[in-house]
Amino acid sequence: ALSFVHNIVSHTREKITSNKQDVRKLIHSAKVGIALVLVSLLYLLDPLYDQVGDNAMWAIMTVVVIFEFYAGATLGKGLNRGIGTILGGGLGCLAAYIAQEVGGTGNSIIIAISVFIFGAGATYTRLVPKIKKRHDYGLMIFILTFNLVAVSGLRAEKVLEIARERLSTIGMGFAVCVFISLVVFPTWASDELHDSTASKFQDLAESLQGCMEDYFRLANEKENEPSASSFSSCKSVLNSKAKDELLANFAKWEPWHGKFGLYYPWGKYLKLGELLRELAASLVSLKHCLQSPRQPSTTLRQSIKEQCEEVGCSLAWSLRELGDSIKKMRKCQQAELIAPKVKAMRVELSSAVSANSKLGQTENIDALAVASFVFLLMEVVEKVQVLAKE
Amino acid sequence: ALSFVHNIVSHTREKITSNKQDVRKLIHSAKVGIALVLVSLLYLLDPLYDQVGDNAMWAIMTVVVIFEFYAGATLGKGLNRGIGTILGGGLGCLAAYIAQEVGGTGNSIIIAISVFIFGAGATYTRLVPKIKKRHDYGLMIFILTFNLVAVSGLRAEKVLEIARERLSTIGMGFAVCVFISLVVFPTWASDELHDSTASKFQDLAESLQGCMEDYFRLANEKENEPSASSFSSCKSVLNSKAKDELLANFAKWEPWHGKFGLYYPWGKYLKLGELLRELAASLVSLKHCLQSPRQPSTTLRQSIKEQCEEVGCSLAWSLRELGDSIKKMRKCQQAELIAPKVKAMRVELSSAVSANSKLGQTENIDALAVASFVFLLMEVVEKVQVLAKE
Repeated sequence: ALSFVHNIVSHTREKITSNKQDVRKLIHSAKVGIALVLVSLLYLLDPLYDQVGDNAMWAIMTVVVIFEFYAGATLGKGLNRGIGTILGGGLGCLAAYIAQEVGGTGNSIIIAISVFIFGAGATYTRLVPKIKKRHDYGLMIFILTFNLVAVSGLRAEKVLEIARERLSTIGMGFAVCVFISLVVFPTWASDELHDSTASKFQDLAESLQGCMEDYFRLANEKENEPSASSFSSCKSVLNSKAKDELLANFAKWEPWHGKFGLYYPWGKYLKLGELLRELAASLVSLKHCLQSPRQPSTTLRQSIKEQCEEVGCSLAWSLRELGDSIKKMRKCQQAELIAPKVKAMRVELSSAVSANSKLGQTENIDALAVASFVFLLMEVVEKVQVLAKE
Repeated sequence: ALSFVHNIVSHTREKITSNKQDVRKLIHSAKVGIALVLVSLLYLLDPLYDQVGDNAMWAIMTVVVIFEFYAGATLGKGLNRGIGTILGGGLGCLAAYIAQEVGGTGNSIIIAISVFIFGAGATYTRLVPKIKKRHDYGLMIFILTFNLVAVSGLRAEKVLEIARERLSTIGMGFAVCVFISLVVFPTWASDELHDSTASKFQDLAESLQGCMEDYFRLANEKENEPSASSFSSCKSVLNSKAKDELLANFAKWEPWHGKFGLYYPWGKYLKLGELLRELAASLVSLKHCLQSPRQPSTTLRQSIKEQCEEVGCSLAWSLRELGDSIKKMRKCQQAELIAPKVKAMRVELSSAVSANSKLGQTENIDALAVASFVFLLMEVVEKVQVLAKE
């Protein structure tokens, strides 16, 4: 019955989150549509078109390319694009100017060589992991602008004017994007990172409990169907590194807002994520014991049932408590409660093991794995105590 | 001494791979530079410029945006760009035509509405995970082209001609990219996926051995400094999901080449990666036992030393063998050898445990964890036997 309630709870939670995600996606789509219409007005309204002419194209291009789901991603791409355009345009002008000074067929050769050098150099820089993370897009725009300006500089005499006009239309596109992305129902990557970290605690607590239940339900009913649902949430925590890093990367671009104030704890979130993944790894290997064909006899399992269930419950409780305290961004008042609890759990477990010390092989693997959890959890608790000080 | 040799081996291996990576990066950069110069010739050579005019810009843009590190990524982006441009251009022409038929101020309104609907719709589609994976870029280009064509269709009378010219220059850029990316020193994502899968086996074997050594060296010397190097390679396996999926995604775009023939086992690589990650999770939790402050007494550890080391060695041997067989793409002849070996290991472990059944808590956690490895490894062996049939 308990596991049934759990299933319902987790399903409802999933539905709510997925609905929320859907609404956010719809809002984002509408925002992009509005931004596109606004920027299209540069073409559609005669007085505006007289001002910018065909360069309005660049504003549209900017909006399409820059507008991302998270506000931080939009800002980061926009700033990268701006800097890349200015640098590339400047260097391109310089190259075109030098080539024109040389004159003759020499100028084409100079342009070709500079295109090769800057193109290859910037491409190599893009492959450096650290730069790739933050400035990949900016470097791409740099290559693009440099090439266009340097190459067309030979044809068009008024390169500078073209550059000025394009830059101003790109600026308009950027302004529209930033305004709509940051002011109208903004989707902050930092909030997402915060929420996903908190919900990871819940997920782990749930899958820990599910695991315990399976183990002793198996003992009772000899049914061999461990609930896969709690397992998958555990695995998604395990595979969350890439997503977390992406979010933290976006969050770094985001300005001061809401509950975070001027304090930027993204590094701590990443560290916490790392610890949670380690915990998830332990849970996964605990689950493998569950699925192993060599199961201990029922009576053996029954003999450790009580202590293990107790420990499992209080572990899950501690995880939930920590997740809550992160969610609400308050110092974890329960942290002092958790530390002695963990101590009690250890005692409990060692008594469970010593009472059964003459048992065979597999029956206390569960208890032993739980014992290693406890140790791991201690670490998490310590880490969270650091975080809770924020 | 053994661990010292191991360190040197793994360091050399690392250096060779990183040098190889560096060379590949340099080659890639040079390739991009050459492609850019080739496409710039459209501007630089007078007879070519007379043909295409300012539309040469689009060829440059295509090369800059499309050319990616892996051949598969370049192809995928190029095809996405082509399809997105054609679809967006077609629908944009249609919208512009309808708007012109209506005439008056009505046409601006119709254009604005269609821009909003298609922009928002395509943006929403981009957020669907499955489509995002493969066609994110194509949808972005669709939005861009649709907007540009629909909006400028009101101004320029000869939309169709412009579209034709742009499409042909984009085609030129695409051709240059594909030729250089696929013919000149191609970097295949499929090869990368293959090699990284094979080297994961090696990494796990190494970290398993490192772990065993640490455990019994600690027993001997009571030094508390587990080697962090083997731990990090284990963790990188654990966090490899995102990269694997990216590579498999690129590999799907790649045409027939080299050793893979017409057989595309990308799904199997992903499955294998999943199993390897599970194994890595077990290894990580095994390592936590190592770092736990509650270490069993030296004599207790000594009593299980022999059996554990033997099992560790043969496990590492099996992993290496499997990795080799994948690397060389031959059916694993050792597979038949491994299965009985695993059985022998089990017997060994249970004897180790039963001989020490009265021991306390932590000293056989190692052996028990290894026992669960054995089970896991059995699964991997079975999986590899499936894979080896290719």
